[in-house]
Amino acid sequence: MTTRESAAVQDFYPDDFAHCYGCGRLNEHGHHIKTRWDGEETVTRFTPGPDHMAVPGFVYGGLLASLLDCHAMATAAADHERRAGREIGVGPAPRYVTAMLRVDYLRPTPLGPELEIRGRVQATGARKVEVSAWVTVDGEITVRATAVAVPLPESMGPRAGA
Amino acid sequence: MTTRESAAVQDFYPDDFAHCYGCGRLNEHGHHIKTRWDGEETVTRFTPGPDHMAVPGFVYGGLLASLLDCHAMATAAADHERRAGREIGVGPAPRYVTAMLRVDYLRPTPLGPELEIRGRVQATGARKVEVSAWVTVDGEITVRATAVAVPLPESMGPRAGA
Repeated sequence: MTTRESAAVQDFYPDDFAHCYGCGRLNEHGHHIKTRWDGEETVTRFTPGPDHMAVPGFVYGGLLASLLDCHAMATAAADHERRAGREIGVGPAPRYVTAMLRVDYLRPTPLGPELEIRGRVQATGARKVEVSAWVTVDGEITVRATAVAVPLPESMGPRAGA
Repeated sequence: MTTRESAAVQDFYPDDFAHCYGCGRLNEHGHHIKTRWDGEETVTRFTPGPDHMAVPGFVYGGLLASLLDCHAMATAAADHERRAGREIGVGPAPRYVTAMLRVDYLRPTPLGPELEIRGRVQATGARKVEVSAWVTVDGEITVRATAVAVPLPESMGPRAGA
């Protein structure tokens, strides 16, 4: 992170909701991505492992979809807090889940360099938040996504879980 | 697999294209999914691991997107072969990559039971193939996807790789 970036949304999800394979700090084997404010956009940085390939030399599209998904949900949470006048880390971060994810793979994403995933809220409804997110590598956008985030339903709450 | 199901598409991708994290038989740490014909539809079965969670008790959406993506690409390959009058395994399977993936999460997918991912080609153009795919668990569809598949471009071929 740079000095202008905020604390990470995922560090403030309540423990019950911090086990996500993509971004949960309590998931032993997951990706542990961290979404921070960087001005009007959010940012996550992630370097894929050598096995995270589609074909040799290029990043697996399923990983890209996963990173965009978690980053978009955290962007919805960050935006909720900003609209309420709160910095990340003042309280628990609200937990959103994905109703829809659309990913457009514009060009192959080279495997090796660090990826930068950025996001921005495009529209906020009574329940739904539309987020755009994109992957940049070596200064070039390779993938663009749109996600629809909704607050975690009660049916996925701690009493409904395993 | 049941006795009426075909050989698996991914067992016949050429070695150079068999390293995908989601479905490559040569990826040491990947998911190794196997897509087979079952009548007019394709089918993959997969049981997520205990860490593959969104929140406790429910499957991680990024994994679901990944499974749907690989299954849809293999469905495009299977359909290509069927249209050419070939069974899976008669020759190498053609390798498609994802141009677009849209995933609609209809309801939370419980973590634990085996997932069944099914697919069907909806439209075939000069270069693009549109595939629908969906996840069923305990007899209920939890996720639906649409993918646009295109043949692997030369820029992702063996000489372009790592």
